[in-house]
Amino acid sequence: MPHRVRYDVVGIGNALVDVIAHAADEFIVDHHLVKGSMTLIDTERALELYTALGRAIEMSGGSCANTMCGVASFGGRAGYIGKVSADDLGAVFAHDLRAVGVSFAGGAGTDPTPTGRCIIVVTPDAERTMNTYLGVSSLLATSDLDEAMIAAGQVLYMEGYLFDRDPAKAAFRRAAEVAHANRRQVSLTLSDSFCVDRHRADFRDLVSDQVDILFGNRAELVALYETDTVEQAVEQVRSECHLAVITTGSDGCLIVSGDGVLAVPAQPVEAVLDTTGAGDLFAAGFLFGYTLGADLVECGRLGSVAAGEVIAHVGPRPLVELRTLL
Amino acid sequence: MPHRVRYDVVGIGNALVDVIAHAADEFIVDHHLVKGSMTLIDTERALELYTALGRAIEMSGGSCANTMCGVASFGGRAGYIGKVSADDLGAVFAHDLRAVGVSFAGGAGTDPTPTGRCIIVVTPDAERTMNTYLGVSSLLATSDLDEAMIAAGQVLYMEGYLFDRDPAKAAFRRAAEVAHANRRQVSLTLSDSFCVDRHRADFRDLVSDQVDILFGNRAELVALYETDTVEQAVEQVRSECHLAVITTGSDGCLIVSGDGVLAVPAQPVEAVLDTTGAGDLFAAGFLFGYTLGADLVECGRLGSVAAGEVIAHVGPRPLVELRTLL
Repeated sequence: MPHRVRYDVVGIGNALVDVIAHAADEFIVDHHLVKGSMTLIDTERALELYTALGRAIEMSGGSCANTMCGVASFGGRAGYIGKVSADDLGAVFAHDLRAVGVSFAGGAGTDPTPTGRCIIVVTPDAERTMNTYLGVSSLLATSDLDEAMIAAGQVLYMEGYLFDRDPAKAAFRRAAEVAHANRRQVSLTLSDSFCVDRHRADFRDLVSDQVDILFGNRAELVALYETDTVEQAVEQVRSECHLAVITTGSDGCLIVSGDGVLAVPAQPVEAVLDTTGAGDLFAAGFLFGYTLGADLVECGRLGSVAAGEVIAHVGPRPLVELRTLL
Repeated sequence: MPHRVRYDVVGIGNALVDVIAHAADEFIVDHHLVKGSMTLIDTERALELYTALGRAIEMSGGSCANTMCGVASFGGRAGYIGKVSADDLGAVFAHDLRAVGVSFAGGAGTDPTPTGRCIIVVTPDAERTMNTYLGVSSLLATSDLDEAMIAAGQVLYMEGYLFDRDPAKAAFRRAAEVAHANRRQVSLTLSDSFCVDRHRADFRDLVSDQVDILFGNRAELVALYETDTVEQAVEQVRSECHLAVITTGSDGCLIVSGDGVLAVPAQPVEAVLDTTGAGDLFAAGFLFGYTLGADLVECGRLGSVAAGEVIAHVGPRPLVELRTLL
């Protein structure tokens, strides 16, 4: 007998605390960063960048965790699976999820590896460049899955960033199995075109075998299918997934389904201050609408409302209750 | 032979990371907090409040450390003495001081007691209510003083909050001795009227014996001298200290010296978002001007500029280089 639905969305991702600092464009050049991208870094490089940066603030982040906070902020029921350690940043991460009503399965906390963190450099153009020390978050494996939580979630949402290690890949496949065995839908965000490049074959298999709803931007989709144009990639994803949602920056998004391709415009924003979390919150709004049974255009509009809120301030999670914006 | 001046101001205080959350006025009532005050809390109470609070952000704080960051932000040379542990929050605290150019003597980091933190509840009226778990910061003793740093600082600035334990009181007296032996000036901020109430006799002795410049607000000064009116307290401090600087909220400040009492108005601020750090940054501006040899009215004006910047955003330290506001 399938589990009762207790969550609208259950997410699996890298549990990270963001360390956010503003810097001039020269910092990006001097430290050989690729603006707008996410780079995985080791302890030494993390220390080097952090030391070079000015004053920072710390707030909970992690792509999929931001999305789950967005779902909860709309009034949806969200669960999150990710690994933290028994250190200060692990406590911060857990608190900030639970404080907004997200159920959190954070692992045993017995590993000596520290909680992961993402050093985010925000340049004057509001673009964010992310440098991630994964720490314990990347050690997520099948044994860390809370299968009852997955079984009780209407949609499973997995973060491509986590896909950098084999045990995590196995965990994704197992999580998708559990979801499907309980007649749930499985969604995936591609997260980053470089991440897609690193694991293209595995991503392709996962998408074609197990993903019902795919999230990504144009660069990620083109990287996945190695096509020359976005249009070709759209055709391909249409043949493989039930639904694909492609964010197109300030243009909004394309929603690709069996019925065709819908374009939904972005929410106008007065001043963009920090694009961190834009894609994460877009997914939150879309999934909230989707699990509520809204039509696809309305789902896209909800995504734009959430993304518009988060890029208008510093930090990757909403500052207001998103339900108040509806 | 006295040491060469290497710092404009050297501070001693409680090294704390702020945990900042917004909450409604009901939170203050429900949790029996005294709005606008600073309360010392133990581990259990810290956990209770933190659990009850919504999403928070973490940023370095500590009254005197905020002041030193303000001095550096004006372009002054600042040093800071305070204790942190070898944990995540200790690393955050040290980074954020050094990142703005403040020299930091942070203790050996070998104590198992965690780095201190201050849970700050910001209510819709922008008032902050502080709940401090002192952790290792309060263990500062004479042996933690970097006497060469003190000897090299034109003005020593000590934070009354630290005065809650006897070893810290001894450290204050020793630090003042070192400063005076090197022909430096000694300043003190009273920090909090409840703290003054707890240690009135010791504060009175310290002020009359060793303090050249006293900072405080009206409530703290009245608490120190147990007078009926502010005017009576002003008369008394005038007879004891070379200089007293009394902040008067949105009115600005009173500067009390042998020459009389000067009133300097506050800087107008469009919207006050968070009063955390107002007094700390006022002291920064005043001390920066003072060590530069500015006249007292100009010192007060610099204090108002710095305070005006910090209350116009969330967080206890300047977001812009204060020197650009001059």
